[in-house]
Amino acid sequence: MPSDKVVKEQAEPKAKTALAHKLESKQQEISVTEFFEKNKQILGFDSRSKSLLMGIKEAVDNSLDNCEEANILPDVTVRIERLNDEDYRVSIEDNGTGITHKAMPNVFGRLLYGSRFHALRQSRGQQGIGISATIMYGNITTGKPAHAMSKIEGADEVAWGMDIFIDTKTNRPVITNDKAFTWEGKEHGTKIEYTTKGRYISGKQSIFEYLKETAIVNPHAQITFIDPDNTKTVFERATDIMPPRPKEIKPHPEGMEIGDILKYANNTQQKTMKAFIKNDFSRITDRLASEIFEISGVSPDLKPSKLTREDAIKIIDAISKVKIMAPPTDCLSPIGDTLIKKGLMHVLDGLRPEYYATPVTRAPKAVNGNPFVVEAGIVYGGDIPSDGPVQIYRFANRVPLLFKQGDCAITKAVSEMDWRRYGLEQRGGKGIPYGPAIILVHVASTKVPFTSEGKEAVASFPELQSEIGLALRLCARNLKSHLNKQERKNKTHAKFEIVQEILPDMAEKVATHLNKPVPDLSRTITKIMNVVWVEPEVKKQNKKLRTITYTVYNYTTQPRSIRLHAQVPKEAVNLSLFTGEYFLDMNDEGKANWEIKDLAPSTSTKVSFELSGEMADTFDADDIYFSGLNPVIVMGAEQLPGDWGIKGLEIVQTSEDDLVPEDEEDSQEVEDLDDE
Amino acid sequence: MPSDKVVKEQAEPKAKTALAHKLESKQQEISVTEFFEKNKQILGFDSRSKSLLMGIKEAVDNSLDNCEEANILPDVTVRIERLNDEDYRVSIEDNGTGITHKAMPNVFGRLLYGSRFHALRQSRGQQGIGISATIMYGNITTGKPAHAMSKIEGADEVAWGMDIFIDTKTNRPVITNDKAFTWEGKEHGTKIEYTTKGRYISGKQSIFEYLKETAIVNPHAQITFIDPDNTKTVFERATDIMPPRPKEIKPHPEGMEIGDILKYANNTQQKTMKAFIKNDFSRITDRLASEIFEISGVSPDLKPSKLTREDAIKIIDAISKVKIMAPPTDCLSPIGDTLIKKGLMHVLDGLRPEYYATPVTRAPKAVNGNPFVVEAGIVYGGDIPSDGPVQIYRFANRVPLLFKQGDCAITKAVSEMDWRRYGLEQRGGKGIPYGPAIILVHVASTKVPFTSEGKEAVASFPELQSEIGLALRLCARNLKSHLNKQERKNKTHAKFEIVQEILPDMAEKVATHLNKPVPDLSRTITKIMNVVWVEPEVKKQNKKLRTITYTVYNYTTQPRSIRLHAQVPKEAVNLSLFTGEYFLDMNDEGKANWEIKDLAPSTSTKVSFELSGEMADTFDADDIYFSGLNPVIVMGAEQLPGDWGIKGLEIVQTSEDDLVPEDEEDSQEVEDLDDE
Repeated sequence: MPSDKVVKEQAEPKAKTALAHKLESKQQEISVTEFFEKNKQILGFDSRSKSLLMGIKEAVDNSLDNCEEANILPDVTVRIERLNDEDYRVSIEDNGTGITHKAMPNVFGRLLYGSRFHALRQSRGQQGIGISATIMYGNITTGKPAHAMSKIEGADEVAWGMDIFIDTKTNRPVITNDKAFTWEGKEHGTKIEYTTKGRYISGKQSIFEYLKETAIVNPHAQITFIDPDNTKTVFERATDIMPPRPKEIKPHPEGMEIGDILKYANNTQQKTMKAFIKNDFSRITDRLASEIFEISGVSPDLKPSKLTREDAIKIIDAISKVKIMAPPTDCLSPIGDTLIKKGLMHVLDGLRPEYYATPVTRAPKAVNGNPFVVEAGIVYGGDIPSDGPVQIYRFANRVPLLFKQGDCAITKAVSEMDWRRYGLEQRGGKGIPYGPAIILVHVASTKVPFTSEGKEAVASFPELQSEIGLALRLCARNLKSHLNKQERKNKTHAKFEIVQEILPDMAEKVATHLNKPVPDLSRTITKIMNVVWVEPEVKKQNKKLRTITYTVYNYTTQPRSIRLHAQVPKEAVNLSLFTGEYFLDMNDEGKANWEIKDLAPSTSTKVSFELSGEMADTFDADDIYFSGLNPVIVMGAEQLPGDWGIKGLEIVQTSEDDLVPEDEEDSQEVEDLDDE
Repeated sequence: MPSDKVVKEQAEPKAKTALAHKLESKQQEISVTEFFEKNKQILGFDSRSKSLLMGIKEAVDNSLDNCEEANILPDVTVRIERLNDEDYRVSIEDNGTGITHKAMPNVFGRLLYGSRFHALRQSRGQQGIGISATIMYGNITTGKPAHAMSKIEGADEVAWGMDIFIDTKTNRPVITNDKAFTWEGKEHGTKIEYTTKGRYISGKQSIFEYLKETAIVNPHAQITFIDPDNTKTVFERATDIMPPRPKEIKPHPEGMEIGDILKYANNTQQKTMKAFIKNDFSRITDRLASEIFEISGVSPDLKPSKLTREDAIKIIDAISKVKIMAPPTDCLSPIGDTLIKKGLMHVLDGLRPEYYATPVTRAPKAVNGNPFVVEAGIVYGGDIPSDGPVQIYRFANRVPLLFKQGDCAITKAVSEMDWRRYGLEQRGGKGIPYGPAIILVHVASTKVPFTSEGKEAVASFPELQSEIGLALRLCARNLKSHLNKQERKNKTHAKFEIVQEILPDMAEKVATHLNKPVPDLSRTITKIMNVVWVEPEVKKQNKKLRTITYTVYNYTTQPRSIRLHAQVPKEAVNLSLFTGEYFLDMNDEGKANWEIKDLAPSTSTKVSFELSGEMADTFDADDIYFSGLNPVIVMGAEQLPGDWGIKGLEIVQTSEDDLVPEDEEDSQEVEDLDDE
């Protein structure tokens, strides 16, 4: 068949043919800026109130990313002025590195333009869309340019300011009033100012809430907010410790598509396929590379630019057959359990929660070659409202997600878990649970799979959702164990009251009535109680020094030995404060051990230590564990879990009284965890 | 300050400054293809199973759009072959106009390229992303090109076939094997074939379900599906009536941003601002245009290309101050209540639902100058599962939405409504209701605000969500009225049984015992019953002819007059079949009226008519209304609602027995509707 046949136009084409030609003539390219201009909701700019928030979010994301990259403790100021009913002037200022004069126009005035799109490491912004979309929205809705100011460090450096308008037809910045100036008192940093249509609201999806939640997961950042009523709120930094800077990694071969490898091969500097596979990807050893070429039958000496689709298919196939180590995880920057707790305490203290469940940071996993880490925390009780569904704080790469909760992998993981087993109400064991709790989940990844450019929800990749579920269950176990402990404590307190107060009282009254001497009840009481009681006490010596004391009472008829164990925040440990006759040792993670030997019946003793520094308050004195005694006779401490990593004392003394069967539901859960 | 000051590089720049420069050097443009390649989940390609569906959806969307534009009854065939565990070969063939040889590469091989992006009228595809994203996904995951075939009508036209690969770096098609060929038996149409990684699943989010739902809202389309097991399913067309072709409209000034008007002004052919405002927008009269220029103070003779931002702001401001008619709505193509019902019946008949609530098509509204229409339907009872949440069928521009239900304006509207008032279970009056029901919502608009490029959920614009709520409530009212009627019917049936069977039985037995004659109970029964009873009956004469008969019994002690009213599907009306002594008249919408005068006590008569054609079965004989009698003495028919548009008889005969107060909850609802 001749491939060069000329399609003749008919003199009078029929209607359908005419339409086909008409459609052809209407085909045209759509500029990406025009596309987003027409579909602002995709960028998160759906309503005036949301748009006002989105702009600030994008700017703050950039500021925090930049500060962290430069190891600067972030200091960000957000200011909103109301110009009239629907026009606002917004500015976001940071103390970051500043942006070079040359880079400013494109950073702010061009969509799909940025420095982090190809970088494989955890960062907030990656798409090169956020801040330019903000500026575009301001341009379009108010007709006014944005004003960017930036200064980089150095005596010779001046600050630069310029007005920026985005040409939506060409997706290029239009710069006016480009001027150098002296920025008084500013060593380095950036400020972006713009006018925009908006609506300032309060409540769950407000700018205030967004900044508050940002402070929770960025405890190293100081965020100042000046609202339209000129009220200033400072979210002080909770710690001076910078999170470790995530390292950039090479792509991991796992989950790579054929199209990916073809593109990489086309762009590589390497001269041979083997060098390319070995050097341009992470976790490929020389041996592995050889294996891949052996299985695939592709020549290792082939020039990468000559790689055909057929050979690419073979190599991808071979890669799926060899065992490659999971990607390195220093590209991630999880918050860590102590800092999550600190962040939550810092911001939620006003609600005086009863319990901050020890947060969980899972080990990193990878999906399609992208490493990720899931973290979870639960705050319970106090003044947290108890009559509605629990609040879910969702975070991705340390950015709060305030919208699209219904369609987020985090919400789905929460909804698919049976919270009734962990002490929260939930109808039918499905859906968002009810009760006085706040659930926090943080997903950190080199590539968070957002459901849209607005980065408001995480797509439900199965591997990711199941990791979130595991983190939640582990954290919920901490909550449940707290609730169990509270219940047992209350019961024992009631028993104590009866035995220690009412019984002697009764004995005395009866004795008086009968005119007989008051009997000595101490042995009787001990026999009835039959517990070793661990009672915690916390003394705040000053803002940064706390003394924690555990009084151990032996209300049994025999001498008892017991080991106590606590996981203390390692940041708050001063080893000189860990002394005393019972202290045994502590490991690098802050797992500390004490031993009390042969405590006589009806006596007590004290174990005590001090924590110092700003993390001291993250230790919950209720989180005390024991070993070496039958759990049924111990009150006030939890049995040491099997995964603690050290062996408890073997001296389990049993008497007949001790042999009550456990009514344990907890012990089951750890094993269940992976089956669910 | 000198604006041309040269920023000197420092000999040893400090770390922060060095980083600022390093960041500058890393800044680069991101191609839109690369962006979507890296963020496939945004296009809906998150998992293998979803990707397989998305591709088919995009191709079917295009086929249906093209057929409708050309007024061709669509005939679409979808075929999936399993090549191995995760590779599939997919083809979609239609009988559309075909695509010209020249247009084929860009239609299939270029993202953000299309004919409908700027067109203001309802269509499925608009973004120019869908089918090219499908092909890109196939390319990337299998390394194989797609194969497109197309033929336009005409004896001289040959068919063309070509292999298409998308270069993701440049976003341009790479064409190979471009050949003309003879397509046996094909007059015109397009077929696209591609291999792709995927996973074929069944269930709620399956390809089968998608095609089934597509058939519901596109009753004019014939869809054939050949699944990987080679099982063929044909969703026959339910009607040969093509939906009216939506007309393209000009932009409406309402909701226009300053950026929009500037762009339009820059592109216009008009010579003056006044001509521009008058001719390039819809609903602007000469008088209105004059008013706008008077208020704004901008010169009407200004050249549009000279429009400044300041003047644009003034014009936008003036537009907000004049009253402009809502945009025309012939740009929309709602399905219509009869066809929604027909479509539902056609596909859901296997579930033998007890009731198809009369669907509601709301009057068109506009948001930001974009017209939209909301339609809703409810199917109830029968074999629809009753123990779980109701199923929600969501549609946008006649396309089923199977994903992201949690974050869709439709789901939110369903969840925020108190369904307990309408006969469905719902905990706390919030959330998705429970019960044996399927809820259908269709949103049609010139611009559906999807939450992402994958077009899976509708963003919650307040105006839109509230319209959905209103449509749902109106439709739910139909359901409720049916449920009430059923309940009353059951009660009355029970009463009838007692009165008409047990009472005479008892009378006879007692009389026999007492050796007395059996008393005549007919007056007693009439007195006890005291109702006018309307009993429907439907006879299927043949596939397309139905006789509907209402028997009216007068079980009261007086002669009674009554009017009956029914809304019959106008497509099924043959006026010669509407005769008989009681028939009064019928209007264009199919609202028919009958009148029975002075029906004697203890007698009955019949009102009868016939419906013909394929819409005959959409009439529900239970939907019969009456007027002219006190509602408390009528059973089997509903009181004519006030909005019926005609006046009922005024002769309300009352006796003392009739004056029972109504226990109406329904009557309240119509008025409540707008307050909620």
